[in-house]
Amino acid sequence: MHTMVKHILKNKPIDTTVEINGWVRFFRNDRFIALNDGSSIHNLQLVLPDHIDRSIVQQITVGCSISATGKVTESAGKGQDVEVQVSTIQVLGLANADDFPLQPKRHSLEFLREKAALRPRTNLFGAILRVRHELAQQIHRYFSDRDFIYTHTPIITASDCEGAGEMFNITSHDSSTEDQPDFFGKEAHLTVSGQLDGEVAMMGLGKVYTFGPTFRAENSNTTRHLAEFWMVEPEIAFTKLPELMNTATDFVQTVIKHTLETRADDIEFLHQRHENEQKQKGKQGDTWLLKDKLQFVIDNDFVKISYTEAIDILRNSKHNKKGKFEYPIDQWGADLQSEHERYLVEKHFKSPVIIYNYPANIKAFYMKANNEETNSTVAAMDVLFPGIGEIIGGSEREADLNTLMAKMKTFDIPIDQMQWYLDTRRFGTVPHGGFGLGFERLVQFVTGMSNIKDVTLSPRAVKYIAY
Amino acid sequence: MHTMVKHILKNKPIDTTVEINGWVRFFRNDRFIALNDGSSIHNLQLVLPDHIDRSIVQQITVGCSISATGKVTESAGKGQDVEVQVSTIQVLGLANADDFPLQPKRHSLEFLREKAALRPRTNLFGAILRVRHELAQQIHRYFSDRDFIYTHTPIITASDCEGAGEMFNITSHDSSTEDQPDFFGKEAHLTVSGQLDGEVAMMGLGKVYTFGPTFRAENSNTTRHLAEFWMVEPEIAFTKLPELMNTATDFVQTVIKHTLETRADDIEFLHQRHENEQKQKGKQGDTWLLKDKLQFVIDNDFVKISYTEAIDILRNSKHNKKGKFEYPIDQWGADLQSEHERYLVEKHFKSPVIIYNYPANIKAFYMKANNEETNSTVAAMDVLFPGIGEIIGGSEREADLNTLMAKMKTFDIPIDQMQWYLDTRRFGTVPHGGFGLGFERLVQFVTGMSNIKDVTLSPRAVKYIAY
Repeated sequence: MHTMVKHILKNKPIDTTVEINGWVRFFRNDRFIALNDGSSIHNLQLVLPDHIDRSIVQQITVGCSISATGKVTESAGKGQDVEVQVSTIQVLGLANADDFPLQPKRHSLEFLREKAALRPRTNLFGAILRVRHELAQQIHRYFSDRDFIYTHTPIITASDCEGAGEMFNITSHDSSTEDQPDFFGKEAHLTVSGQLDGEVAMMGLGKVYTFGPTFRAENSNTTRHLAEFWMVEPEIAFTKLPELMNTATDFVQTVIKHTLETRADDIEFLHQRHENEQKQKGKQGDTWLLKDKLQFVIDNDFVKISYTEAIDILRNSKHNKKGKFEYPIDQWGADLQSEHERYLVEKHFKSPVIIYNYPANIKAFYMKANNEETNSTVAAMDVLFPGIGEIIGGSEREADLNTLMAKMKTFDIPIDQMQWYLDTRRFGTVPHGGFGLGFERLVQFVTGMSNIKDVTLSPRAVKYIAY
Repeated sequence: MHTMVKHILKNKPIDTTVEINGWVRFFRNDRFIALNDGSSIHNLQLVLPDHIDRSIVQQITVGCSISATGKVTESAGKGQDVEVQVSTIQVLGLANADDFPLQPKRHSLEFLREKAALRPRTNLFGAILRVRHELAQQIHRYFSDRDFIYTHTPIITASDCEGAGEMFNITSHDSSTEDQPDFFGKEAHLTVSGQLDGEVAMMGLGKVYTFGPTFRAENSNTTRHLAEFWMVEPEIAFTKLPELMNTATDFVQTVIKHTLETRADDIEFLHQRHENEQKQKGKQGDTWLLKDKLQFVIDNDFVKISYTEAIDILRNSKHNKKGKFEYPIDQWGADLQSEHERYLVEKHFKSPVIIYNYPANIKAFYMKANNEETNSTVAAMDVLFPGIGEIIGGSEREADLNTLMAKMKTFDIPIDQMQWYLDTRRFGTVPHGGFGLGFERLVQFVTGMSNIKDVTLSPRAVKYIAY
């Protein structure tokens, strides 16, 4: 039974004999191995004895896998408390130094994207993937601790009005259904949101959340978009917009806080990487460093402004007057672009911002109409984060059957196909709401990675399948 | 701020005034409301005061939603410790008794499948969905507590050799890519398994698991198959088959045990339902009742037999000799059918069974060849459960590059497209293995539901999208 590096570094079992397995990250002076087994950003130093067989030493290269036994001792080396004095060692898998693309130096992110299947073997992607794991765990715990029921809403959907965005279609060439090109007997797509199904579950379970993949067939290959990404979508009965904004804030703060505590080592590594990267960028670099930014988000209430206030700020800004926005803001009703969101968050408020009460016609059909304003708005909210833009979008839902049906007609939604959804309003409707968190954007925020392709194992985008 | 029914039933805050929201499950004598808000299988009894407005009483029907305030008191009623003496009540959403399909009686599962979007409002599906939630939570905790990293492997895949089963194809009609019918620049499918990508992540992270949707375009509309289902797939570095069998056993036992503890109420309800159902079936019914079966699985080691032993038992069984198998077993090498698995588990051993060391040619290309036997077997294992059949399938993987490539040629796997996968063996290969758990089959086992369509919110199968 082998021991994981993480536990040896933490428990420091001096004088104990351990078996350790892992991959060689460095090998110097034919004597010192830095071993990593994926459990920690930190390597364990193995010290080879003098009498070690020369033929074994020659097999040891960066990337090879080994199994060793030895005694744990205190280390005189810098940056490590313990090391292992090796008594037996075996190379399990070679990594020919002439062929193995990863060497103990910093590789560019572009280079690593080309070798995407090797990324998990680097310090950087080990840290990113462990933080991603921890964020997912904390999301499940947050909701589970608060009586939300995790609901697997369908991925394949027959409905094509789930929300914005182009949908992928699904076909089958199963030979047994060759005369039935449509396997399901109707057109089927990949879901763009679990929300409508989440509402169905909410109507019985009260509080639910989804956490699953969603898809957009959008022709945009940017640092912020993927064709396949994971979404978290809570849906809550008996709630209204003000409470929903507080729930979203508490949710994202709590998840980040616990991840920071649990993966302090990985975040520290990512913080230093982020700092170095910003220094290299000079004046173009972000002066708000990773750990400071995360702590700020945890410690401070998010700024809440209505859409109308946001438009006023933007319209009157020097930025707007000097023509620095690609899309100038001249009147109420304009859709906010990424540049506007970032101006509000990064320049004006220097804080996460929640914008609420958007114009009805730029938001989805299911959002609850506000009646108290001159302008036609809906009880929607977007949470905007520095460096990321929209990380959460949500709303109170239109709970009244007739109002919803009238709205669906306006939005050209095929009402006859949506009776299952309308039943949520037809029988025992309740005030309710929910929101969606783009999981990869949260991972980007917490890891400080600027390209969304670098926070997912094997990203998909237009003309792009990593491997 | 309202209080959830679950907490009132548990904490019994006598003399406290509470606000409760939920849906009416029963209403009798114009006075007693059984209220459910999804947080518990149990309802909370609300007692209306004498002076209640007649117009409100008339609105209260099964399925309507209400919001009420009142004082918690001890209850004289049977089966409940506390009730709420209502002071104010408001009907939020009506449920016209002539239209609402769910009434306070037992509906058949077939009827409910036709009204799938209303199922979460029934006691039965509330219990099933809460147990499903709990199983998912326990799975995440099991792996997270043991240093496995949760990995989101891709759903859209360009590889078509992930394992058995027909694959769905993905196309895009995005107008901006009209001249590019293949959005990704190559053929794309829905994944049938995250394993190969899991192996890529394992090579850096050591221990990983996936928990996501997988897809099979199989033309089989049975009680055991879905076109879309969730799989859990751990992949573990530095492990061998015997350890893997123990891991699988401990995993499924631990997850069931904690779910039984945490959702005792829901399991009790499902147990009674299962018992009633078996009684109605008479001699055809299962005499192994739900809670007994679950306890047996938790408390007992699984029987472990090699494929060769399994074939001997089956071949020599009276069942086989009397011709009771649809597929008679006459020689080594036969693929085991569901009827054989069930015979071993339910008749012969009356226990979960792990069968290991299967013939190489009936198993997948990536499984490790055993060299110690006369017959050509691989280090594979299947865990078989009573009433379910195969619930887990796994293997040690072929870790040697050349052996794997030779095997891929035999299996007609396009080696040139699989270089990313072969890199796991080319650089620092390690002995490793993993398994896949069909999540819906686990939910079936723990809830006692015999049709897999009844353990998922909105099932998909051939010619079948629930809504």
